[in-house]
Amino acid sequence: MIYFDNSATTKPFTEVLESFMKVSSSYFGNPSSLHQVGGQAEKLLSQAHAQIAKILGVKTSEIVFTSGGTEGNNLAIKGIAMEHRGRGKHIITTEIEHDSVRNSVKQLEELGFEVTYIPVTKDGRVNPADIERAIRHDTILVSVIHINNEVGSVQPIQEIGTLLKDFPKIYFHVDHVQGVGKLPLDFYRYGIDLCTISGHKFHGLKGTGALFVKDGVRISSLLSGGGQEGKRRNGTENVAGMVAMAKALRMSEDLRKQKVDQLRQILGTIKSGLKQIPEATIHTPETNEAPHILNFSLKGIKAEVFVHALEQEGIYVSTTSACSSKRNAPSKTLIAMGVSTDQAESAIRISLSYENTLQEAERAVKAIQNSVKRLREVMK
Amino acid sequence: MIYFDNSATTKPFTEVLESFMKVSSSYFGNPSSLHQVGGQAEKLLSQAHAQIAKILGVKTSEIVFTSGGTEGNNLAIKGIAMEHRGRGKHIITTEIEHDSVRNSVKQLEELGFEVTYIPVTKDGRVNPADIERAIRHDTILVSVIHINNEVGSVQPIQEIGTLLKDFPKIYFHVDHVQGVGKLPLDFYRYGIDLCTISGHKFHGLKGTGALFVKDGVRISSLLSGGGQEGKRRNGTENVAGMVAMAKALRMSEDLRKQKVDQLRQILGTIKSGLKQIPEATIHTPETNEAPHILNFSLKGIKAEVFVHALEQEGIYVSTTSACSSKRNAPSKTLIAMGVSTDQAESAIRISLSYENTLQEAERAVKAIQNSVKRLREVMK
Ligand SMILES: Cc1ncc(COP(=O)(O)O)c(C=O)c1O
Ligand SMILES: Cc1ncc(COP(=O)(O)O)c(C=O)c1O
Repeated sequence: MIYFDNSATTKPFTEVLESFMKVSSSYFGNPSSLHQVGGQAEKLLSQAHAQIAKILGVKTSEIVFTSGGTEGNNLAIKGIAMEHRGRGKHIITTEIEHDSVRNSVKQLEELGFEVTYIPVTKDGRVNPADIERAIRHDTILVSVIHINNEVGSVQPIQEIGTLLKDFPKIYFHVDHVQGVGKLPLDFYRYGIDLCTISGHKFHGLKGTGALFVKDGVRISSLLSGGGQEGKRRNGTENVAGMVAMAKALRMSEDLRKQKVDQLRQILGTIKSGLKQIPEATIHTPETNEAPHILNFSLKGIKAEVFVHALEQEGIYVSTTSACSSKRNAPSKTLIAMGVSTDQAESAIRISLSYENTLQEAERAVKAIQNSVKRLREVMK
Repeated sequence: MIYFDNSATTKPFTEVLESFMKVSSSYFGNPSSLHQVGGQAEKLLSQAHAQIAKILGVKTSEIVFTSGGTEGNNLAIKGIAMEHRGRGKHIITTEIEHDSVRNSVKQLEELGFEVTYIPVTKDGRVNPADIERAIRHDTILVSVIHINNEVGSVQPIQEIGTLLKDFPKIYFHVDHVQGVGKLPLDFYRYGIDLCTISGHKFHGLKGTGALFVKDGVRISSLLSGGGQEGKRRNGTENVAGMVAMAKALRMSEDLRKQKVDQLRQILGTIKSGLKQIPEATIHTPETNEAPHILNFSLKGIKAEVFVHALEQEGIYVSTTSACSSKRNAPSKTLIAMGVSTDQAESAIRISLSYENTLQEAERAVKAIQNSVKRLREVMK
């Protein structure tokens, strides 16, 4: 099997599963319990906080554990909105956010907030000047995705963060779910106040994630309760899951340092192969592109048909983002980039992890070329 | 080790961990992905829904998977409040709820909702007539805990549900986190609209839970996103965790049928032992009491001191609820029952699981008696 759907989810590393098992069976206590069974769990949880903070280059107190990227994005956006609504009710975001951001701000619109959606160029990138122009006296939050999950365009986080330094009362949230372990961000230097990551996107476990909340930034909690995670995220902590996530993040960062160029080579191989197919159009931009995501369409071939054709060759790719795929809706990012609905309905996403190899890319190219040929015959 | 802190958290069953490992490693796909790796995960997730629904005696469509009891309670309460706020902003709950309920309604108070807190008798039980009297034309929700987590008093859920049938526009939510697998509820017959359970309280994994939402009951989602769980709980699903929770629930229900009387025997043994200690007062009521929770205080001995004394004998118990224990606050339930602050500060909770034995109870009684004797000497 060639698994090229790593932006949907990744296979947990064996070491990650081992950590999870070890903690779940031997250190199963509730970190809030006063006795030693609880104390041991608490210690492991603190270590996981510290390890993740260190890898991300931030303080331990700034890491809030969550159940995943969706919760992180919701907590950041609604948490800022509810806490600071007295000061203003205007939010700026982009047209190419993940549904967890898009639908969070939509829900806030129903509660009386106003949202400005910044468009993107045909390269799938926002212009920082557009964000600056959208700022109002009542703007409280700017939320921008780092690496778009559908086409892999990289947003100008540093430039946006730098311009926002002139507006110290506006909080800056970054959805880093597709970026972490692939393209690091310097949270402090870029002026980021809140930043979301999700464990299962870097070989950690589903149901684990973290939100960076800069010291001094107050957020209203989404899940009220027993006071866990500095009262910012209540509920008995998934200790084993967080230890496993810390392990996954360390391994991913080590791999990034060794292997990120190989990811680009793999994508390069696939791109070259696609260029030999007359029906193919590559939608991922040539510059400011992620190392692991490639989006292309095949004229006249519906994406779903092609996903299943490749599946028969043992190759797993996706149409748009996983959560949109079943709804059969064309990628919102492609539409925002000005791609026609027709083309968007033929769009395929290949997304890599450090487990993928050049050999797989070569096999995939052949399979893509053959599948197109076969489907072309069928359609005649 | 004698682990008597099962209301804080339980040790996952070996079979539960095995299920988790198997699914995480062999069926790691994203259930939303169109290809077969996703399809297999989706199938397992559907089965977990169906299994849990069947055990709880409800429909598959009525089970919403969550990250735990805290999220379930927040989703039920805030979900109803936000969705139905146009019709009314009054909520009824009790003085003995878990912090995840208490702090959820507190947050709603800040948003303009009004909350009536029903008191309890000295037996830690609400009077259904008090609830009926509190109902107003703008009441939208009644939220009541089933088994109180601090003293083990069982609330009259059936009576409350029955009286609420005369008020079809008021939703009824039950926090069943301590009840499931111990004292079942007939959701339909008792007129329950929403009901929370949490995996790690019945030997499932931390970070897993479910909310029953009766068909036709509309709730606003707390986590907006990709449309998972019928749009009621968005975010990539923790498939392995939910399969593991289904397994844990089935095993717990099987154990309940065989062993719930044994739980009562164990508690009986401990109670008899306590009655021989002049300093001991039992706070758990004699009737309408849970099979697995016993709360008592030891005059003149601070709870924290006693927890550590028992720990030295290899016995793990707790002060109040786990999440309040570190704050050193006396149990809110005991205070609501009219117990003095002094006594409440000496309160110890023993909470059992089906893994505990009568032998453990006998050993624990001796250890408690010896520890009291020792501390009595020290204090002289
Ligand atoms: C960019 C982006 N943000 C957020 C999410 C949501 O994360 P999770 O799947 O952990 O809920 C995803 C993935 O689904 C994503 O790709
Ligand atoms: C009665 C009750 N409700 C809710 C919760 C919260 O559940 P969780 O620990 O899964 O967040 C607990 C336990 O902490 C509880 O005892």
